[in-house]
Order: sequence, then structure tokens, then C-alpha cells
Amino acid sequence: MKKIILKKIKDFKTGKLSEKELFLFLQNFPFSNDPHLKLDFHRKLRRGIPEVIFGQGKSVEQLRRIVKKFTEVGEEMLITRVDVERYAALKNDFSHLKYHAAARIITSDRQAKAVNKGKVLVLSAGASDEKVAEEAYISSLYLGNKTEKEYDVGVACLARVLSLQKKFNGYSVIIAVAGMEGALPSVVAGLTSTPIIAVPTSVGYGSNFGGLSALLSMLNSCAGGISVVNIDNGFGAAYQATLINQKIS
Amino acid sequence: MKKIILKKIKDFKTGKLSEKELFLFLQNFPFSNDPHLKLDFHRKLRRGIPEVIFGQGKSVEQLRRIVKKFTEVGEEMLITRVDVERYAALKNDFSHLKYHAAARIITSDRQAKAVNKGKVLVLSAGASDEKVAEEAYISSLYLGNKTEKEYDVGVACLARVLSLQKKFNGYSVIIAVAGMEGALPSVVAGLTSTPIIAVPTSVGYGSNFGGLSALLSMLNSCAGGISVVNIDNGFGAAYQATLINQKIS
Amino acid sequence: MKKIILKKIKDFKTGKLSEKELFLFLQNFPFSNDPHLKLDFHRKLRRGIPEVIFGQGKSVEQLRRIVKKFTEVGEEMLITRVDVERYAALKNDFSHLKYHAAARIITSDRQAKAVNKGKVLVLSAGASDEKVAEEAYISSLYLGNKTEKEYDVGVACLARVLSLQKKFNGYSVIIAVAGMEGALPSVVAGLTSTPIIAVPTSVGYGSNFGGLSALLSMLNSCAGGISVVNIDNGFGAAYQATLINQKIS
Amino acid sequence: MKKIILKKIKDFKTGKLSEKELFLFLQNFPFSNDPHLKLDFHRKLRRGIPEVIFGQGKSVEQLRRIVKKFTEVGEEMLITRVDVERYAALKNDFSHLKYHAAARIITSDRQAKAVNKGKVLVLSAGASDEKVAEEAYISSLYLGNKTEKEYDVGVACLARVLSLQKKFNGYSVIIAVAGMEGALPSVVAGLTSTPIIAVPTSVGYGSNFGGLSALLSMLNSCAGGISVVNIDNGFGAAYQATLINQKIS
Amino acid sequence: MKKIILKKIKDFKTGKLSEKELFLFLQNFPFSNDPHLKLDFHRKLRRGIPEVIFGQGKSVEQLRRIVKKFTEVGEEMLITRVDVERYAALKNDFSHLKYHAAARIITSDRQAKAVNKGKVLVLSAGASDEKVAEEAYISSLYLGNKTEKEYDVGVACLARVLSLQKKFNGYSVIIAVAGMEGALPSVVAGLTSTPIIAVPTSVGYGSNFGGLSALLSMLNSCAGGISVVNIDNGFGAAYQATLINQKIS
Amino acid sequence: MKKIILKKIKDFKTGKLSEKELFLFLQNFPFSNDPHLKLDFHRKLRRGIPEVIFGQGKSVEQLRRIVKKFTEVGEEMLITRVDVERYAALKNDFSHLKYHAAARIITSDRQAKAVNKGKVLVLSAGASDEKVAEEAYISSLYLGNKTEKEYDVGVACLARVLSLQKKFNGYSVIIAVAGMEGALPSVVAGLTSTPIIAVPTSVGYGSNFGGLSALLSMLNSCAGGISVVNIDNGFGAAYQATLINQKIS
Amino acid sequence: MKKIILKKIKDFKTGKLSEKELFLFLQNFPFSNDPHLKLDFHRKLRRGIPEVIFGQGKSVEQLRRIVKKFTEVGEEMLITRVDVERYAALKNDFSHLKYHAAARIITSDRQAKAVNKGKVLVLSAGASDEKVAEEAYISSLYLGNKTEKEYDVGVACLARVLSLQKKFNGYSVIIAVAGMEGALPSVVAGLTSTPIIAVPTSVGYGSNFGGLSALLSMLNSCAGGISVVNIDNGFGAAYQATLINQKIS
Amino acid sequence: MKKIILKKIKDFKTGKLSEKELFLFLQNFPFSNDPHLKLDFHRKLRRGIPEVIFGQGKSVEQLRRIVKKFTEVGEEMLITRVDVERYAALKNDFSHLKYHAAARIITSDRQAKAVNKGKVLVLSAGASDEKVAEEAYISSLYLGNKTEKEYDVGVACLARVLSLQKKFNGYSVIIAVAGMEGALPSVVAGLTSTPIIAVPTSVGYGSNFGGLSALLSMLNSCAGGISVVNIDNGFGAAYQATLINQKIS
Repeated sequence: MKKIILKKIKDFKTGKLSEKELFLFLQNFPFSNDPHLKLDFHRKLRRGIPEVIFGQGKSVEQLRRIVKKFTEVGEEMLITRVDVERYAALKNDFSHLKYHAAARIITSDRQAKAVNKGKVLVLSAGASDEKVAEEAYISSLYLGNKTEKEYDVGVACLARVLSLQKKFNGYSVIIAVAGMEGALPSVVAGLTSTPIIAVPTSVGYGSNFGGLSALLSMLNSCAGGISVVNIDNGFGAAYQATLINQKIS
Repeated sequence: MKKIILKKIKDFKTGKLSEKELFLFLQNFPFSNDPHLKLDFHRKLRRGIPEVIFGQGKSVEQLRRIVKKFTEVGEEMLITRVDVERYAALKNDFSHLKYHAAARIITSDRQAKAVNKGKVLVLSAGASDEKVAEEAYISSLYLGNKTEKEYDVGVACLARVLSLQKKFNGYSVIIAVAGMEGALPSVVAGLTSTPIIAVPTSVGYGSNFGGLSALLSMLNSCAGGISVVNIDNGFGAAYQATLINQKIS
Repeated sequence: MKKIILKKIKDFKTGKLSEKELFLFLQNFPFSNDPHLKLDFHRKLRRGIPEVIFGQGKSVEQLRRIVKKFTEVGEEMLITRVDVERYAALKNDFSHLKYHAAARIITSDRQAKAVNKGKVLVLSAGASDEKVAEEAYISSLYLGNKTEKEYDVGVACLARVLSLQKKFNGYSVIIAVAGMEGALPSVVAGLTSTPIIAVPTSVGYGSNFGGLSALLSMLNSCAGGISVVNIDNGFGAAYQATLINQKIS
Repeated sequence: MKKIILKKIKDFKTGKLSEKELFLFLQNFPFSNDPHLKLDFHRKLRRGIPEVIFGQGKSVEQLRRIVKKFTEVGEEMLITRVDVERYAALKNDFSHLKYHAAARIITSDRQAKAVNKGKVLVLSAGASDEKVAEEAYISSLYLGNKTEKEYDVGVACLARVLSLQKKFNGYSVIIAVAGMEGALPSVVAGLTSTPIIAVPTSVGYGSNFGGLSALLSMLNSCAGGISVVNIDNGFGAAYQATLINQKIS
Repeated sequence: MKKIILKKIKDFKTGKLSEKELFLFLQNFPFSNDPHLKLDFHRKLRRGIPEVIFGQGKSVEQLRRIVKKFTEVGEEMLITRVDVERYAALKNDFSHLKYHAAARIITSDRQAKAVNKGKVLVLSAGASDEKVAEEAYISSLYLGNKTEKEYDVGVACLARVLSLQKKFNGYSVIIAVAGMEGALPSVVAGLTSTPIIAVPTSVGYGSNFGGLSALLSMLNSCAGGISVVNIDNGFGAAYQATLINQKIS
Repeated sequence: MKKIILKKIKDFKTGKLSEKELFLFLQNFPFSNDPHLKLDFHRKLRRGIPEVIFGQGKSVEQLRRIVKKFTEVGEEMLITRVDVERYAALKNDFSHLKYHAAARIITSDRQAKAVNKGKVLVLSAGASDEKVAEEAYISSLYLGNKTEKEYDVGVACLARVLSLQKKFNGYSVIIAVAGMEGALPSVVAGLTSTPIIAVPTSVGYGSNFGGLSALLSMLNSCAGGISVVNIDNGFGAAYQATLINQKIS
Repeated sequence: MKKIILKKIKDFKTGKLSEKELFLFLQNFPFSNDPHLKLDFHRKLRRGIPEVIFGQGKSVEQLRRIVKKFTEVGEEMLITRVDVERYAALKNDFSHLKYHAAARIITSDRQAKAVNKGKVLVLSAGASDEKVAEEAYISSLYLGNKTEKEYDVGVACLARVLSLQKKFNGYSVIIAVAGMEGALPSVVAGLTSTPIIAVPTSVGYGSNFGGLSALLSMLNSCAGGISVVNIDNGFGAAYQATLINQKIS
Repeated sequence: MKKIILKKIKDFKTGKLSEKELFLFLQNFPFSNDPHLKLDFHRKLRRGIPEVIFGQGKSVEQLRRIVKKFTEVGEEMLITRVDVERYAALKNDFSHLKYHAAARIITSDRQAKAVNKGKVLVLSAGASDEKVAEEAYISSLYLGNKTEKEYDVGVACLARVLSLQKKFNGYSVIIAVAGMEGALPSVVAGLTSTPIIAVPTSVGYGSNFGGLSALLSMLNSCAGGISVVNIDNGFGAAYQATLINQKIS
């Protein structure tokens, strides 16, 4: 996309394009003028990361319009929170889509390619946190990071965490996913100097209150080096990790 | 007190006391008939633990009436949540009182005597939790338990907790006091088979919400063997530990 | 399991095993190295209680992997929060499973055996609390405690509770299960010197807020000798009771 | 006041007053036209209870204006939530005021006179609830009810409540004041067929959350025959009891 | 039932029954000894109101056991919160049941009979509150009160409420049912001296938070003479109204 | 409707109608006397806006009665929150209804006609907010306002908002619909002197808590000129905009 | 200020100012370059309302710097939430300030001048809401609106509100200030077609929860034509009213 | 400190120290054995950041003990949340302390030295957020980062933020501090590819609920690249920024 824009600017310099034409191009280009849906293709320029679509709450019809647009423009694409039913409704029309079931993510059919220098580790506390951890893992891979994962390493069995301790400093970012009391990030933070992105999950019951217990735990951690994203927001953690890795690379 | 009652019953059997007199004695004895304050001296009989007064929110005048009553009856006494100002206002009239400043507790002036078989360990996560931990520690001692303490052993520095691990199984109950993210009980529970009474504290700020974060953490612990008392309720933890120890003894 | 480990240690002492081999054995043994699921067989050594699986939110596929692992290792097993549909999907492959419908628990097919000395009583306030009370009852039995139950003894009809009073001191632990205003533990605590594990339930409606009313009631009880586990956490109460009974035995 | 109005109406009938004059009188009379403060003297006509002033948050200056107005009109008066400092600032100018310190209430200096047929009982659970209970007690007396009180009868010592049981049915309304877990109304409701007005208090600490625990308890009571007023609203309970007693009389 | 008990007592006096036999009879009678379900037939004696079953969350199987018991003993019966599906499953076995669809209530098949002297008015603010209002209306009728109803009289159209004003003082109790902002009780309280039982409903959306907005409104009413029951608790309001009417009668 | 009433009043003047007949007409007219449903046809007179029915939670049967009444009286009609299933159940009986699917609104089959002078702009932050934005858009049109819309202009891509800035002052009211962090109104308010009605939506997940995050954001905006309606209340915003426009016209 | 800018632009056109000089002027002018405080003098141009300073939480030192800046530039000024102590500390240095004590507002010493066509009415429910109502009243006056006020007209005495009804339609905006149950806006909205800005206040106690009860009430009003600003935000309501009036004028 | 430890290890290798002596040294060294306070000097080794003391809630006496310990060991020191009164009580005994008043931080008296490669920008939305922003700024400087600041750049005046846009990508981390609606991070995130650490502040009033509104806003941001620390936790943001910069350097 950068190429297209640079060419237009060159055309303007060489007189092929009038000032007014350039302006109109730029004004219209970055986002489609569909009155109901303005895709922000500009974002890749501004932030180094393609537009990602939050699939939750979107109808099959809305998703179809979005995928069509992306396909026309030839942009890469990452759609989160797509359950298998909506994916099934899309895959006939768009055969190039790839569905990551555990993570509930649709990507364009390409290999994830590590372009950043830093390395990300995704930790999850319990087997039930897997869905959110996978959203973080797949997102991180497809946003260009070398990414590894270690699941089910909750603090009720410290031996699991301690056995990983010596690896922690080798990563640039650790994404720590935990529900229930959400103590994993606190414990890991005490064992490493790698920054931690904590992801509370809504896993639990009773006074868990939809992830509130884990969220408050992580925000109140007595250990430094933890910052928090929204409940169940595996993608958001991967996104933040990517921005950090872009600074390193 | 048991003695007094047994004597009365004996007197009744031997005819020294009529049925009506015995009834009146029993009805009036267990609690004073002060219309504003009914002290439950009966409780020691029923529960093996003397009446404890919750001092918070009570005026000096109310405390004075209570201490006077106890002194007359000759009962032992434990008053919690008494700040130093109210203690100062009481000590002239009742020279036999002993004030435990860090714990904000008044007891009658006697040595704490271990009568139970089990042993209690009071752990606190941070230096700021000391007030609550001391309330638990002094209460536990005066309720008849051998009691030890280790403070400032929060999870941000796991080495502190791990260095104590081998001692944990030697106690019958561990009282774990923690504010902020309240992760200490979860971590300790993973390292021992001793039951843990968790005490969340209101220490913290921001989304701590007066101890809510620690409370929810402890209730949602993924590790078994933790039960929880109210925020800042050091005395309540000691009380529960005492009942458990009475079962052991 | 202890036997296997002791044998290895002996082998090491007698030279059959090198230091490195012993280390590797110990590092790998306690938990399976399945990257998605680390079962903590070590826990039985550390805490005297086998690994218990929290079944809620786990797929049939995840449960199948877990049961298979347990069956291979020959470990005992307790899986909570399994609805009848998921049990139905498992029972063909694993004929040795036993399903406790009211409690929604799967155990390996053996008789519950009382190995602890203390005795547990499970009380429930209303008929609607039965599900949670049964989770506590079955769990307590299978974790090795003599366990009895009395259901539907809520405080709106005090006669029910009072008729049980004289039995209360005969137990080492009372598990009191109640929804709505959760007053049962407060009342029972006033009648006995047995420690009470209170279990708030989400039974109720309106300002019950999913169990919050009962939870706050129990945490704020004016009667000593109550500690609380998470809303609907019948298993957690049984687990805590078991640890206490192990101290007695 | 009824007299004044009836006289005016009579004057109108006999022609002493024109229709327009009567209208103006009625329009202006019921509430003073002070743009900042409209006292509702009409209320006594409509509801049988004089205007009561909620003193909390009102400045001495505002209170002075109110007392002056009442004194001019010759109306009876009940001002709640007046701390001793503000009372001290008022008493020089208005020597006829009577201050009920424990209840923090100002009344005009008259004897409380029972005009209703029903009888009210004010119960309080703990000594710390006294302030709120006294607000209910004094208010009930001055609103015209025979009123009795029994304080410090919380459920942690059931004997206290049970010893009162046989009296309960003798009252037309029971006002049950309790903080902490607020279980008193549930227990009393199970022992009587007298309707109960429950008053949660903010007495407590930690997860009491300013009276929320007692409020939710009372709203969620499994025992019928309880309705609830706002936290610490002793006056509101007395007011409701008065309306009920007016129906009986 | 009273008859049975009086007969037994007489038998005891005349020697037909030994003391031990009487005791056993009384101990067992008031509630069935089904270990899972203790119906409190005693309650009618104590409170003048038959045992009412809260049907929500109870399985068809549990309901069947309850109805059977009631039928055997010949007691009247009121079961609330029974949806039409569960009723359908019961009606074949128990042809004498009567289902009140709008109120979701099952009663034994008899005419409601006004035995109390007071008269109850059920008001509802909006058409969507009908379900809760009907629960109050049918319950009040079957508990023995003359009961009338006026629905859809919310404050957004004051004319509706004002047109009813002159009737209000003719009732002994007004039950005011409202969701959303719950202002109806405040407005009605300003227009009458009849005590009001306010029932917040969960009708609404958004920041209604399941009835919290109406509940808080009603608790915080600036108008005296309102006491509140739980969200959607139409039955509870009728029960309280009945106790008040029994005092009048 | 005004016509009917004016005619009646004229009839009264000319003697065709007695005073009593007029009174009865007026008393009965404004709202139907259906005991279960009082439609407020008077409202159009009082507020210039026809009665609007809140369709959520109403059964097909209730809706049918309402539509029938409106059709008989010949009134215009706007029913919100009607899902497509209930519309399908109504459309056979009432062929003149028009269904706006995206907005979930039923209107009588007429063209929306701009009668007010001011112009309304509906903004929405994300594609998922469309449902609520359409409710505002269709409602505003049918209540008589010239209305335009720009969707998917959230603050994560400021260029979208800034490209609209110069148009903002041309509207009399801007309705800003946003979920998640709800920052759109704050940003727009900083760019215009047009008053903004902010509509928080329940779109989001995790700590969104059903729209609470957007609601609090909008209430706490540091930019002046924002007032807020309930979560998801697109209709309410349109209603308020209409009242403002009526003042302008 | 417009004059200064227009002059600079003219200077640029006539060559007195270079492009660079103009740019620098414009960049620096709208906000002072004080690194700690950027006053937005530009806002008057953009929004027609001068910068208003939120005084709460600002030190005397910060206020002094602000007043000095305003005085230098010669701008009008409105500072809200200044208690009398901080005003006292400022008035010696800035003799031209005018302090509105009841409203806690500082303005420059000028007469409020009605420049807008619409007229604003400030209503308050109770005498305790006066502080917030005065903040709205003074702000509205000084922002250029004809403004009137009627205080203490809460719904507990409907006669007060009804006596004002016929005036309501004469205003362009009504600001309705209420604490406790916050029912005033709902009732007023039912009586007029004037748009209402509702201001919840933190006046109350107990389950008022700092204004939450009134806030939720207002957001959930069943009457259309109400939009809400933050708790106690009298100024915000006046600001919104001003923007609406500017559209009318 | 590393030096001391390396020397000990060397001594052990050369035989100056026995294995037991080394072990004892290591066990005791990292944290002082004061039973009430265990300072974690080890942390600098593990995490590259010296122990930081959270000063809030600590008494002067506790602070004195801490400063003394640090001074003896010769460690650098950073104590946050020390109000000027407690600083005044300390400064006589420890003349080498430096107090940063706006940030409420004590450091040892040295120059902040940038050792990391990345550069941090601290943004604050309003003048009232200064306290928290300064805590972040001073902490970041003293933890070794080049740090710059721009205050009072809230979204109500977008020009302020937009004028900084081109600088944003030049930083490795942006710390965005905002109270009220907390929209600043969302807007900044849309303008840059630098990761943002968002700090909600408790600045605001009413439905701000102690910072909850800003916290929820930031967690729910629709813009990627934001992670959040606790309310008012300026230090925590600086700490996280430091860990990120250490990865870059």
C-alpha cells in the first residue's frame, strides 16, 4: 500500500497529478467510503500492523462484506472471535481463508512469518484458559513475532513455573493468561526482568464475576513489570507485544 | 463459671434452691440484663472461647461499661480494634488492662497460655499488612494456641516463601494475611497440606477497592485448602484456628 | 506413587541411577509433559490429596485426555462439575467411571473409604441448595472423611436447626451450605464450638446477584468460627475439611 | 392546622371570604413561599404525620430557618440526623427544643403521646447498632406509637432472641435493626407472625461495604414477612410502622 | 392441623399418651423427616400462613415430592415461580392443582377466600411489570386478603396516578410494582397515608442492571411510608401485606 | 386527536354536551380503560410526540392488543425493540405495518416527514454499534427530524472523525453512539458547538460489563456539551433530539 | 480574541507578517505554552463558550497561575468548585474576582448578560441539593442564558411540582437536580415537552452510594426527553443548556 | 552488590569460605532477617531494578528503619507515596535524601542517569493528573530512562494532541495518564505505533467512582497497543517502561 501512495506522491511531483487530485486520492484512499463500514487501511502505514477485525457480534453478512473488501484491496487480514458456525458460512465464498479453531481466528491463507526480533512467550495458568491463550498465540505469530507457548502452569503447583524460570529472561515479552485468582503474572514477574502483559480470563465461577477477580488481582499486583489488557483479550496482548518487538527490531 | 453453675444445680438437687430459683438464676446469669448491652458469658460454656468484644465503633463510655462488667464477673477479656486514644481514656480506671499497640487489642493482664495442641503460623505478605497480622497473632496467642509469625513474605520474591516451605507442614493451621492481589494463600496452599485461613487486607490503592481485589483472589484460588474470613479480620482468622486446634487437642 | 519415587531414590543411593538420571526422573515425573495439560501427580505427595479436575468449561475432548492419563498412571480421580451430557459422552470409552448425578461428579469406580479420624457434617439451608451440598458431600466422602448430611434446615424454621444442636459438637468440621441471605452459618456458629466452612450458593433471584448476598453475609458474620469458600464451591469446602481432618488423624 | 383550614372554609361558606380569597389562602398556606425552602405543612392533612426534616447535610443556617418557620406556624417538629455540634448552635435561639443525643434527633419540647393502637418493638443486633435503633425508637414514640426496645440481641447468641420469642406476637410491628450479616430479621421472622421492618446498618467493616451486606441479606431473606428500608434509616422504619398502626387504630 | 395437635395434648392429659409419646409426636410432626426435604407444616401455627414453596430452581421431581406430601397431609398449598412447562409435567398426576399462568403460581383448587379485614391494592407501573404484579395479586388473594389491582399507571403520565388518588386511603396496604426508574412508590407515597410495600422489578435494560436501578430508587425514596422487598418478589410483598392485615383483623 | 377533543369542547359550549358528559369523555379518552394496559393518547397533546411503545419483553399477544388499539384510534405508532420473530407473528393481521429490520422498529406505513427545523446527525463508533445507531436514526426520522448518519467513525482512526468536523456545526443535535471505551462523544464535543446526546452501547466484552465502561466514560467526559441516555437507548436519544428541535422550530 | 486573530491574518495579507510568523503566532496563541498548563483560549472560537476551569483538586498555586493568565489575556473566566478557603487565599491578589458562595464559583466581576434566546429553568428536589442547583444556576446565567430557579419541589409533595406545570413549556431547557431516588426528572418529563437535563446529586445516605441511586433512576426513566450529566455536575448541565440555546438563538 | 556476591563465590572457590559458610551468606544476604521487614536486595540481580519501597500506609518509624537499612548496605533507593509531613520527619536523620514534592517521591541524592536506550514520554490529560504523571516521570528518570513530559493535553482540545503527533513514534514507550473518561490513550494509540502504558487516575467526581471510569475506558479501548496499570500507579507504568527499554538496550 505504501507503494501506491508513494507513486501518487511522485506523480504529483512530476505533474502527472494535480494538487486537487492528490488530495482527493489521499482523502478517499485510507478508508473505503461505504457509509456503514470504514475500513482503516491507513493503519498499516501509521502503526505497522494491518487492520484487524473484531468479529464478535458481527453478522455473517457484515463479515462477508469485510472479507470481500480486504480481498479486493489485496490486504492481509486477521479476524478474531469468529465461532465455527460463522466460519462455515463464509468458507464457501472465500476459499483462501484459514481458520484456527482453538483460537477462533480467521486469517488469510499464508504462513506466519517472524519479522520482529523479539520473542514472545505465551503462558496460561489452567487448561480452561486455552481459548484465550490460543487467541494470543496465533495473533502474535501472524503479527510477525517468533512465539512459543507453555500452558497449564498455574501457581497451585509452583514446580511447573519454577521449572521454566531460567527461560523467562530469554523472551522480550511474556503474555501471562490466567483466570480465577489470576496470580500467575505476579509470580512470574518476581522471577524475571522480562515485561509481562497480563490477560485476565473469565474462566471461573461464583465470585469470579466474569473475570473481575483475575482482573483486579493483576492490576493490584505487588510485583512491578505487569500491565494488563481487557478480560479475555488475547489478541490485545499480542498486539501490544508486537509494538514492543517493533521497537526492539 | 462452670463451677458456679454446677454448684447451683447441686444446690437444687439437695433442695437448697427451689426449681423457680434455679430457673431464675439460669435465665439471668448467662447474660447481664442491662437493656442496652447483653454480654454473653454463656458463650465460654457453649464454644470454649470467652466473649470477645469488637471495639470498633464503640464509644469510650460503652467500653467502660463492658470492662467494668467483665471485671466484676472476673472473666477474661479480649477487646479488638481499640485505637490508642480510647485505650488511654480507659487505662486510668482499669489498671489491670494490657494494650497490644500494633494489634490494637486490649486483654486482661495475664500471660497468654497455650492450652491447645495444634500450632498456628501467621504469615503476612507485606509490611503494610502488619496491623492485621498482629491482630491475628495476639488473638491466637490469647485464645490458647502456640503461635509463630513470619511477616513480609509476599510472592513478588518467591525465595522468601520457598525458604519457609519445609516448616509449613509442621503447623496445624496457617493464617495467611495479604492485601493488594492477595496471591500469598494460593502460593502457600500449593506448598503444604496444612489448611489455610486467608485474611484479605484493605492495604492497597486504586482498583484495590478497599480490599475487594484480595478478597476475590482468595475466594477464587485455584489451589484447594483455603477458606477466607472478612477483609482485615485478623481476629476472625485466629478464632477459626482456635476452634480447629480444639478439635485436635 | 510414593513407592515409585522411593525406589528411584534407593536406586540412586545404590548406584543403579546416576545423579543426572534421578534428576531427570524427578523433573519429569510429577507432571506429564503434554504441552497443553500438566497433571500434577506430585500433589498427592505434597498435600495428601490426589489431583482433582475442575470439569466446568472443559470440553469432552479435554476430559477424555485427562481420564486417559489418570487411567494409564493408575491414579484415583475426582472430576467435578460434569453435567450428564458430557458424562454420557465419556462413559462408553471408560467403563470404570462412576457418576454421582446430584453432585455432578465423576469418580473412579471404588468405594469411598474413611481414612481420617474427624467427622464431617454437611448442612444445607434450602432444597434448592442440594446440588452444591451434594458436591460437598460426595467430595468429602471420596477424600476420606466419615461424612453425614442434613438438608433443608434453613433459619426461617429455627426448630429444624435447634433439633440438631446437640449433635453439632460431635463433628470435627461442619460444612454449611446456604443461598439467599446465607444466615445458616451464623446461627449454627452460635450453637457449637465446631469450626464451620461456609459455602454461599447462587440460589436466589433479584438482589441475590449470583450469590453475592449469601457470600457477603457469611464473610460479615458476627459469630466467630466461620470461614468461607467461593460461591457454589462445595468441593472446596470438602477439600478444606479434609485437610483439617488430616491434622486430627 | 386542620382547624385553621376548616375555619377558612366556613368563612367562605358564610361569605366572610370570597372564592378568590379562599383559593389564595389554600394555594399559599400548605407550603411557605420561600423560594429556597418549601415546607410541606399540608402533609399532616394528607398523611397524618407532620413534616419531618432530614437534618443531614443541612447547615446550621438552613436548620435555623426551618425551626423558625415551624415555631411561627406552631407546628410540631421532628428533625433527624442532627449532631451535637449543630444542636449546640441552635439551642440558644430556640430554648423549647429537646435533643435526644443517642438518636441525634431534635423535637419540640413535649411529651411523646401514644395515639395509635398498635405497639412497636425495636430490636437491635449489636451494641454498635444503637445509634440507628435509637433513631427508630425516638421517632416511633414521637410519631404516636407505644414503643418498646430490646438491644444487643444478635443471632450469634440465639438464647437472647429465643428468650423474647413469646412477646413477639404481642406487637403490631417489629423494627429489626442489624449491621454485619443482618441475619436478625430472618431469624425473628421465623418466630412470629408480626410484620417486620428491617433496617440494615452500616456497622461493620471490610466486605460490609457500608451496609451492603446487611441490606442484601435482608432483601434476600428466605423468611416471609420482612420488608426493608434504606441503610441506617431508623426514622424511615418508624414512619412505616406508624402508617401501619394508623390502619389498626 | 391445630386440631390434631390439641387432640394429642388432650390425650396426654387424660393419660392416653405418655410424655415420651407426646414428645415424639411433636418432634416429628411439624416437619416431615424426609432427609432431603423438611416441609414446615408448623409454620401455619406459628405465623398464620401455610408453607409456601418457592418453585424456582426446583426440578419437576422435587415439585412432585412436595405436592404429594401436601396432598397426603391435606394442607393448602401455594407454589410460586412455576413455568408452564413444569406445571404441564405435574398436572396429570395431580388433577386438583390450579395454575395461574400470568402469575406463574400453582395453588390447590379452591376459591380464594378473604379472611382478613384490610384491603390490598396492587399497582404496577408498566405493562412489562405484569408478571410480578400478578404474582403479588394472586398470592395476596390466596393468603386471605380482599385484593384489587390497577396496572400500567407509571409516573410518565401522572394523570393515571392522580385519577386513582382518592381511592388510595381506602386500602390498608398498597403494593407498588415498578421497574426501570422505580419512581411509582415515591409518587404514590406522597399522595396517601396508606403504607406501601414497594416491589422493584428487573424490567428494563442497560443501566437497569437487573433491577438494581428500581431497587435503589425505592430504598432511597424521599417520601416516608415505603418499605421494600427483593427484586421481582411479588409474593414477598403479598406475604407482608397479609401479616399487616392480620394485625388489623 | 386534537380535532376530536376540540369538537367535544365546542359541543359543550353549544350545549350539545352536558358538563358531566364532557368530563367523562375527557377522563376516559386520553387512555383506554383496559385494566391491563393504559395507552396514553393524551401524550401527543402534552408533549407533541405520539405514544411510543417499548416492545422489549412484551409478548406477541400484548403487542397485538396495542396495535389493534392504535389502529382503531387512527393514531400513528412507533414500536421499538421488536425482533423479527415477533414482527413476523404480527404482520399477517396488520398489513399496514412497516418493519425496519436493522433498527428493530415497527412503524405505521407512512413516509417519515421532517416537520422540525433542526437537523440531527447520528454518529456511531464501530460497525457493531449499528443496531443502536439505526434505532436512533429511524426513530429520529419518524419523530419529524431531518436526519443524517455517519457510521464506523471511532476514535482509533481520528482521520475519520476529523474529516467530518466541518459539518458538525451545521446540525442542531448530534447523537453519538459508542460502545467499548465510549470516547467518541468526548472527541466530537471538542470539535463542535453542537450539543451531543451520547448513547453508550453494550457492545464489547470483558470489563465492558454490559455497557458500563462506555456509560461511565460519557458521564465523566472532560468536554462540556454532552448529556447521556441509557445504555443502548437509541430511541431515547432521538426523542430528546426531537424535543430540542421543537424548541428551535 | 477573534479581533487579534483577524488582525494578524490581515497583517499577513498586507505583508506585515511573513507566513512563518503567522504560523508561529497561530500555533502558540490558542494555548499558552506553559509545559504544565495549556489553557484553551481557542475554545471560545470553536464552541462559543470561554474556557471554564474545574477548580476541584487544584491547589491555590495552580489557581493563581490560571487567574493570572486569564487576567493577562483579558478573557472572561468561570472557575467551578472553589471552596471559600481557596477563594480567600486568592482574593487579595485579584480584587476583580466575584465569589458566588452557594455555588462555589468564581467569575470575573461582571454582570451576567443574557445573550441567548432560550430560557432555562433550574429545579431542585430537596433543600440539600441546593449546592449543585446553584452551580447550575450561576453557570447558566454567566454563560449567557436567561435563567430562573425553583428549589425544593421534590415528588414527595406533588402539589409543588403540579403548581409549576403550566410554566414548564415556556422554557427551552429545564435542568432538574435531584438526589436520593432522583424521581423529579421523570415526573417533570411527563408534564412538559421541554427537554430536561437531569443532574443526579450525591445527596442521601446508605444505599444512595454517592449518587448512584439517583443516577440510575434518571438513566432508566420511563419518560422520554431526559438526558443525564455526571453526579453533582451542575455546571455540565448549564453548559449543555447553553449549547442548546445557542442553536435556538 | 553483585561485586560482594561474586567475591564470596570466588572466596568459596579458593577455599576461603566453606560450602556451609557460602550457603549461609547467600541465604541471609538477599533479604535482611528483620522479622518484620524483609528487604529484597536480591531483586536488583534478578530484575535489573533496585528494590522500590511503596511508602503509602507506612509509618515514619517503618520508613526510618528502611532508609537506615538501605544506607547501611549502600544501595540506591526509591520510596514512593511519601507526603511532605513524613518526609519532614525523616530528613533530619538522613541528610542525603532528595524529595521530589510534586511526585511525592524520596530518592537517594544522586543525579538520574539514563542507562537505557529507549526514550519514554509521559503525557497527562489534565492539570489535576499532575501528581500521578510526576510520579511516573521522576520514577522513569531514576530507573534509568531518558524521559520527557507533556502535560494537560486532554482530548477535549484535540489540537494539543495532534500538535504532538509527529513526535510520538520517536519514543519507545508512551505513558498516558488520564482521569475522568480516560480517553487520551485511545486517541494517542490511533496516532502512533509506539506501545502505550495507560495510567487511570482517581481524578474526577461523581460516577468517576475513584478512577473506575478511566480504568474501564482504558481496558476497553478499541485501539490496540494499550496496556493498563492500576489507578494512580504512575510508578508502575515507569517500571514497566523500564523493563521494555532494557530489552531494547
